[in-house]
Amino acid sequence: MSMIAIIHHSGYGHTRRMAEFVQNGVTKAGATPHFLTIDANGDLPAEAWDILNRADGMLFGAPTYMGGPSWQFKKFADASSKIWFGMGWRDKFAGGFTNSATMNGDKFSTITYFVTLAMQHGMVWIGTGMMPSNTKSATRESLNYVGGFTGALAQSPADASVAEMVKGDLDTAEAYGERFAKFVAARAK
Amino acid sequence: MSMIAIIHHSGYGHTRRMAEFVQNGVTKAGATPHFLTIDANGDLPAEAWDILNRADGMLFGAPTYMGGPSWQFKKFADASSKIWFGMGWRDKFAGGFTNSATMNGDKFSTITYFVTLAMQHGMVWIGTGMMPSNTKSATRESLNYVGGFTGALAQSPADASVAEMVKGDLDTAEAYGERFAKFVAARAK
Amino acid sequence: MSMIAIIHHSGYGHTRRMAEFVQNGVTKAGATPHFLTIDANGDLPAEAWDILNRADGMLFGAPTYMGGPSWQFKKFADASSKIWFGMGWRDKFAGGFTNSATMNGDKFSTITYFVTLAMQHGMVWIGTGMMPSNTKSATRESLNYVGGFTGALAQSPADASVAEMVKGDLDTAEAYGERFAKFVAARAK
Amino acid sequence: MSMIAIIHHSGYGHTRRMAEFVQNGVTKAGATPHFLTIDANGDLPAEAWDILNRADGMLFGAPTYMGGPSWQFKKFADASSKIWFGMGWRDKFAGGFTNSATMNGDKFSTITYFVTLAMQHGMVWIGTGMMPSNTKSATRESLNYVGGFTGALAQSPADASVAEMVKGDLDTAEAYGERFAKFVAARAK
Repeated sequence: MSMIAIIHHSGYGHTRRMAEFVQNGVTKAGATPHFLTIDANGDLPAEAWDILNRADGMLFGAPTYMGGPSWQFKKFADASSKIWFGMGWRDKFAGGFTNSATMNGDKFSTITYFVTLAMQHGMVWIGTGMMPSNTKSATRESLNYVGGFTGALAQSPADASVAEMVKGDLDTAEAYGERFAKFVAARAK
Repeated sequence: MSMIAIIHHSGYGHTRRMAEFVQNGVTKAGATPHFLTIDANGDLPAEAWDILNRADGMLFGAPTYMGGPSWQFKKFADASSKIWFGMGWRDKFAGGFTNSATMNGDKFSTITYFVTLAMQHGMVWIGTGMMPSNTKSATRESLNYVGGFTGALAQSPADASVAEMVKGDLDTAEAYGERFAKFVAARAK
Repeated sequence: MSMIAIIHHSGYGHTRRMAEFVQNGVTKAGATPHFLTIDANGDLPAEAWDILNRADGMLFGAPTYMGGPSWQFKKFADASSKIWFGMGWRDKFAGGFTNSATMNGDKFSTITYFVTLAMQHGMVWIGTGMMPSNTKSATRESLNYVGGFTGALAQSPADASVAEMVKGDLDTAEAYGERFAKFVAARAK
Repeated sequence: MSMIAIIHHSGYGHTRRMAEFVQNGVTKAGATPHFLTIDANGDLPAEAWDILNRADGMLFGAPTYMGGPSWQFKKFADASSKIWFGMGWRDKFAGGFTNSATMNGDKFSTITYFVTLAMQHGMVWIGTGMMPSNTKSATRESLNYVGGFTGALAQSPADASVAEMVKGDLDTAEAYGERFAKFVAARAK
């Protein structure tokens, strides 16, 4: 059974809820998810590094703040340099997801950063593999309406509570988690 | 009076309409717009290079196709290498806009490419300078709902005619043209 | 035996030579390479689409011109939208390489565009998985001295002939072709 | 007299030295530099926000760590959201610089992030405006050999001390500081 770490930071809970749906998708695919939350100081649970080092794949999650991933996520990324020196994550699979208040608002920047991080580690990137919902009949609730290819995207208005997140975005996150874990299960050695 | 070139390619007319609204904004700001359309072969009107070489600022426009600006726009960009060798556009102002069918769908990639092109030319980049409409009260018609900062973004469903483009997106394009031209007018030597 | 397409454009022959070394690496890994050259008009050999549709992986190659891939490569990318509508390349592996005259000079932009294209197609991206040669003892001839992670990078001075390309860069391209093909061979279904 | 803030983080001193040369260039241009160092916790000197709010332009500096700006810089960027809400930095000029151990190694990613941050703030971006040194006669000591357009780039081997930084890279940083400050002086209101 393949093991997938969902390593994420969340400022106000929206990205965390997105991560929960990603986790649901991983579970649906029959893989074992590990839910690892980076805290407000950019620190990880004690067991996190061990889990990451053993994982077949990792899904990076962070809110998009000021045009990129939150600093807490970046602190984790910088700390991973110790593993990079030994290429400890080489050939593991990677993916990513982000939430922000604005419809576009530089979410692409965050996801592309995740790719750049993964590539430095020698990881292999799996995107959403989804078509967008982009015709006149599409609604805000349609799957992949926000329209991410490299990673899963959610948009939650600046004054929306976690409970008010758009269901279609959460379903997209779940579908991505499932697609990711299925690909990993089929291809992990 | 400052002179602003709106150099753009449009596949089906949506980006061209966006360019018209950008042009309206430039005119409202009291600057002189030059509307330069790159054709289906990636070629420019005969007078275009002369106008670009004399312009105080240029606004780059292209649809986002397959994750970046249309090849016709890129053909123009590649042809501009002749000017680059002599730094002919150094210190001119630059900006950009794009339309695509998907809400996010890699529009950021196109706009970031425009910046990269402008920077190679030694140009100075002016973004939208707008706040996004990203609260629960925002509607699809709100100014900068699609949410671009580096450049102006429009989203038109894959099956939407040019006439069906979202008015809020066109108003955003106009506001950007005006902001760009005002900044240039105040700062051009 | 897995089948890898090396689909590339070359303006003056440098990227083509890089593609030849990528091909050598693919062959060393025991996979079957298909060498597909995009011509000066951005058109492909007649059999190219059929080969691409059957390939297990594709390596995208283009020179970096004016901050991005050559327009001829982009014309191919835009033409691939027909396949995208049917998700014909979903789950295939992808990678990329580029050459330019300047040491940095926006090669990252070209490689990141390749990722964006691959992700829209639902492909899975394999980077170089190499450490850089970045200590004081490194020379211009060292493996991955130019230092690409997401894809393989070569730098050839503006006045250097194809024969004068840096051997270390070509060896890097070959090592990448081999790494890519080995990963694909182990993971392709 | 225009006022330019050089707001930077440095892990081991290399980026700080680069910032000093940027500062020299600002001074040579006749502008007033303010040297603001973000500390190891991502915190700023007490007077920093006041200076930034009054500056005509800011130059962002950070090392490139794991494919992007150091987390300490990102913490500053995230903290600037308070100013963003009121568009307090709108129409100020911005630029950026970075150092890393690898020749390419994702420096483009850091610089592009700086642009994205500046654009969210409504700032106007000034790149290096320099040609690269990219012919066969160029040496590692040539101006802009590392080859940045959007911002100034330095490369210091992983085992090089601050004193061992390449003089050509530091001269490039100084030339950029001067170009930036001259442009600002001529165009600031």
